[in-house]
Amino acid sequence: MAFHIVLVNPEIPANTGNIARTCAATGTHLHLVRPLGFSTDDRVLKRAGLDYWHAVNITYYDSFEEVEAANAGARFFFASTRVKNRYTDFQFRDGDFFVFGKETAGLPQSLLDAHTETCMTIPMTDKVRSLNLANSAAIVVFEALRQNDFPLK
Amino acid sequence: MAFHIVLVNPEIPANTGNIARTCAATGTHLHLVRPLGFSTDDRVLKRAGLDYWHAVNITYYDSFEEVEAANAGARFFFASTRVKNRYTDFQFRDGDFFVFGKETAGLPQSLLDAHTETCMTIPMTDKVRSLNLANSAAIVVFEALRQNDFPLK
Repeated sequence: MAFHIVLVNPEIPANTGNIARTCAATGTHLHLVRPLGFSTDDRVLKRAGLDYWHAVNITYYDSFEEVEAANAGARFFFASTRVKNRYTDFQFRDGDFFVFGKETAGLPQSLLDAHTETCMTIPMTDKVRSLNLANSAAIVVFEALRQNDFPLK
Repeated sequence: MAFHIVLVNPEIPANTGNIARTCAATGTHLHLVRPLGFSTDDRVLKRAGLDYWHAVNITYYDSFEEVEAANAGARFFFASTRVKNRYTDFQFRDGDFFVFGKETAGLPQSLLDAHTETCMTIPMTDKVRSLNLANSAAIVVFEALRQNDFPLK
């Protein structure tokens, strides 16, 4: 059993490093869509995630369409601050993909518009523009794990 | 309605900054027990959390006992990788405190031993020693919010 996190054009290496750590902690696969805002050989990324990088199943792509093509039949859920459905409104299951956009701008509106039924938001006050990307990914993955009674090996 | 996060001797400013952002996003109060591994005037902390620092209700203490004394009657839950009860085993309610230890060592064993019935863990694989501190705090606070139907203003 595994869930999947897709990061579309992540910009900040410490966030991707933290998400890699969450993936290692949960058996979640990580999918990175280029361009990335950093090199994966970058010393900064290594500082943030090196200890866990080897323990994570990571795949690289050049577009989100490549992710969809390589994982046909999978369910994709798109995180955004600009939609209404809560992440807790969905019943997640083995093989689901959780898609997150870049830190400064989120996912492209065109991608959200093309998948309105599986867009999801994490509720929050109006005091912040968004949650930290790594925190958002952890919140969603652990909700999926909770719903499935923590199927961790 | 508000929950409370207590950080006992946090070491890494970016983590406390991220947790402050989560607190601002959720109306959660932040309680910091000195010594901290950084100055709250520190440029690093400001970079990590300045935009949100002013939006958070923060209280400082010199010991965990001070936190307990100042909040008599509240329920305290202690996060640790060394205990069995899952964080999802509890029914959280308004006013609950979630207590987290320092990044490198977690909470003192004596504190866990004194509160065995309200210690909680976040389940994970054996591939990592722990989750990132800010991610752990976000996971627990959002589970508490979920259980209470996201009482956000």
